Amino acid sequence: MEHYINNRITQIEEAAKKLNKPVYKERDIKKDTAPRTDWLTNSHKVMSLEEAIRKSGLKDGMTISFHHHFRAGDKVVNMVVDKLAEMGYKDLHLAASSLIDVHEPLIEHIRNGVITRISTSGLRGKLAKEISHGLLKEPVIFRSHGSRGSAIASGELHIDVAFLGASSSDPMGNACGYSHSENAKSICGSIGYALPDAENADKVVILTDDLVPYPNRPSGISELNVDFVVPVESVGDSSKISSGAIRDTKNPRDILLAQQAAKVIINSGYFKNGFSIQTGSGGASLAAVKYIRQSMIDQNIKASFALGGITAHMVKMHEEGLIERLMDVQSFDKVAAESLKNDRMHKEVSSVEYASAQEPGSATHFLDIVILSALEVDVDFNVNVLVGSDGIIRGAIGGHPDTAEDSALSIIVCPLLRGRIPCIVDHVTTLITPGSSVDVVVTEYGIAVNPRRPEIAERLEKAGLHVVDIESLKKRAEDIIGHADPLPFGDKVVGIVLNRDGSVMDVIMNIEDK
Amino acid sequence: MEHYINNRITQIEEAAKKLNKPVYKERDIKKDTAPRTDWLTNSHKVMSLEEAIRKSGLKDGMTISFHHHFRAGDKVVNMVVDKLAEMGYKDLHLAASSLIDVHEPLIEHIRNGVITRISTSGLRGKLAKEISHGLLKEPVIFRSHGSRGSAIASGELHIDVAFLGASSSDPMGNACGYSHSENAKSICGSIGYALPDAENADKVVILTDDLVPYPNRPSGISELNVDFVVPVESVGDSSKISSGAIRDTKNPRDILLAQQAAKVIINSGYFKNGFSIQTGSGGASLAAVKYIRQSMIDQNIKASFALGGITAHMVKMHEEGLIERLMDVQSFDKVAAESLKNDRMHKEVSSVEYASAQEPGSATHFLDIVILSALEVDVDFNVNVLVGSDGIIRGAIGGHPDTAEDSALSIIVCPLLRGRIPCIVDHVTTLITPGSSVDVVVTEYGIAVNPRRPEIAERLEKAGLHVVDIESLKKRAEDIIGHADPLPFGDKVVGIVLNRDGSVMDVIMNIEDK
Repeated sequence: MEHYINNRITQIEEAAKKLNKPVYKERDIKKDTAPRTDWLTNSHKVMSLEEAIRKSGLKDGMTISFHHHFRAGDKVVNMVVDKLAEMGYKDLHLAASSLIDVHEPLIEHIRNGVITRISTSGLRGKLAKEISHGLLKEPVIFRSHGSRGSAIASGELHIDVAFLGASSSDPMGNACGYSHSENAKSICGSIGYALPDAENADKVVILTDDLVPYPNRPSGISELNVDFVVPVESVGDSSKISSGAIRDTKNPRDILLAQQAAKVIINSGYFKNGFSIQTGSGGASLAAVKYIRQSMIDQNIKASFALGGITAHMVKMHEEGLIERLMDVQSFDKVAAESLKNDRMHKEVSSVEYASAQEPGSATHFLDIVILSALEVDVDFNVNVLVGSDGIIRGAIGGHPDTAEDSALSIIVCPLLRGRIPCIVDHVTTLITPGSSVDVVVTEYGIAVNPRRPEIAERLEKAGLHVVDIESLKKRAEDIIGHADPLPFGDKVVGIVLNRDGSVMDVIMNIEDK
Repeated sequence: MEHYINNRITQIEEAAKKLNKPVYKERDIKKDTAPRTDWLTNSHKVMSLEEAIRKSGLKDGMTISFHHHFRAGDKVVNMVVDKLAEMGYKDLHLAASSLIDVHEPLIEHIRNGVITRISTSGLRGKLAKEISHGLLKEPVIFRSHGSRGSAIASGELHIDVAFLGASSSDPMGNACGYSHSENAKSICGSIGYALPDAENADKVVILTDDLVPYPNRPSGISELNVDFVVPVESVGDSSKISSGAIRDTKNPRDILLAQQAAKVIINSGYFKNGFSIQTGSGGASLAAVKYIRQSMIDQNIKASFALGGITAHMVKMHEEGLIERLMDVQSFDKVAAESLKNDRMHKEVSSVEYASAQEPGSATHFLDIVILSALEVDVDFNVNVLVGSDGIIRGAIGGHPDTAEDSALSIIVCPLLRGRIPCIVDHVTTLITPGSSVDVVVTEYGIAVNPRRPEIAERLEKAGLHVVDIESLKKRAEDIIGHADPLPFGDKVVGIVLNRDGSVMDVIMNIEDK
């Protein structure tokens, strides 16, 4: 130990003994002297999908996870499950943040035993239909976005390997839903639903269509949580992000509902400087924010934040100074995704930060007003957003029960009828959001207020809005359509709906062909 | 359970049993209907310092922690320890990211038994002097910034209660080192050294001089990790951030050394498009980046990122497009702090993300070039940055050993002499950075290259730089000053220096009054 003066080695040995630590031994440090500019192609984490799967230690029976931020444009679920099938995997549990029409190829993988269990927030299209008819042996477990985040964080939903699509990643796995490079191929904006997976999965595989130099910052996913980085041709088609339930509406009835909802907001007592707002999926819900804009300007009211699925409308109002901050768990369109990429006050939040019931600080608790859609509302204000009135799964829980329960005021926009189908009913087909957290239901035939909120009914009436009894709405629908026949449900449970508190709230029975 | 149609209750019970979960019971959800705009003053987390301390469960003998991002302007350490003394606490372990002149009042608290152990990266001023003379019974544990981050993350350094100053916080504890509100009182920029504390301490107390409405995003500290929020008059004097070792230099010798270091960088072989750079504290080191600017422009070279302590020089070059990203663990001046606040490509990183030896993805591993200072360098290239040649502690380890070891090229700038004190010596007074990770030593009398890096010596010679043997530098210093007398060290260990691998690398003995 010639580098010590004064023969300090005895004291060093004593100090080490006291601290229960070893004495330093000169390591033969071989510095890595390669220029770091070479590392783009040299990272030990970068490999093919097949190699990443092998190295991940994935085994039959394990749980894999995915996010759905590319919505109808998603290419990752099908790509990965195809590869897993090809590699001979069986009996996997697929835990996605949601599944939609584009995931129809899963039907074959379920038939072949590659996927035998599913956890998700929603199901749509042919896959949903087949599952409603009994395709899967085990029932699908449905959770809200907030509940999925909590369940992953607490370990209740344990993920063995997460496969997360990213619009850019550096070779170490700093990854996100946009890219600042010239070679950007895709953009989905916030990847808030993927963040609990990244933080908690045993192994994390990033799939990216833009491998960029280190450091890919800012980025929602930190390299500290990433094990493998897989360059692929495409993770998603960004042009299809704002499809389905989050398309901007041109439907006149939706616009009428949105305008009515705006009036409810403005006269609710919560429309004051510093208020906060969220609009859920569905044309009328998303559009509501457009119709409070002028009143905000006239009354000099600014919102402190807009939360949840962020839209071009909100970005516009943010850029006008009407909404201070955007808290984005899911970018609902490309404008929102671009804004998240560039705007420091447009913040990505994980589903835990967004809507966990177990975190008193999650953002939904700070929400004044949420506007939500519904497939059905019943006379007890219970809401169904998951199963059609034909008994077939065709929607997603999303953040519906999270935001309805935690916000100060929840407003449901829902037409009285959709074609020949009544939406205000005696009993919802499937219970998703309990009536105790639903405050106002806006239909084109009047506004029903939960009797738990008499002060709201009073304010709306005072403002001249058409407040009606929810029973009268139901009767009006019945008068037009008559009573529906009971649905031909079978004996098999095809879906289980979990409440935010982790309990089993409802089951979905298989539906038999008529 | 009247809200279920088709008597599904049996199936629900069966499903719950199978999943081992309870059946949903309609909770009497009492929605919180208060406007969220009222919550600024109503949060259950907001309270006085004394109440937060009581509720934190802090007990005698426990470990408390602090960050030093306000440097000479810090008010939090003294405020909190005064309060702890007043409340009668004894025998506390103070684990700060660093301690400096302003923390002189700790001397009294040590004398009175309030503080009996200290862990830190550095010590300066009277406190350092007293400790060098044996004030503390237990030796101070010195760690580098990266090692402190790792030790906290691994639990080796367990923090019971962290007291973290923030220039803004909302009532839930989303907190950071700047404020976007009109009432901003202070700014320190990055709070990277506080982030491991926030993430790992049992209890986290945020002290802030600007309590702002929720959501205070973006913010380095998430409410999810915060237990208490304490509004105070002032957390720090921002005008004193860039004091001491991080002042911009006007010293002609420092400027000469900086210019020489710049020539080394430019001719090192690492000066190419996409390279990365860090400058450590010390005038010559910080200034070096100024003198590569013109060459970057002339040769059309852009840096991918600058790392570590970020300065106004770097911000300027970033804004000119010469440095793509800033990775900021500590803002060295107010310009840097303001840039962190406003610029999306100026990213706060925690000390773990910055320099953990245990994380192969920490940023130091991606560093091409680091320029560092030294109090002493010895003929084996070992470096001391902690203890003066008089045996008195007067510095900080900082990120010195982290960046030297992980970078591709480490350059030390160091004058041959400081007054009558030689800086190139036979043996460093205290070993901080082992010579095996030190590549080049720049003095005003020539440039010494570690024999481990012959290719670098060759490149510098080829460029006409004055490359000399380190022995010759030492002799030159000796020729001028003569041999120094041995220092009057005593028998008591007053400090223990840990290496990045957790081993005991050196001890600091008490110094006796001459």
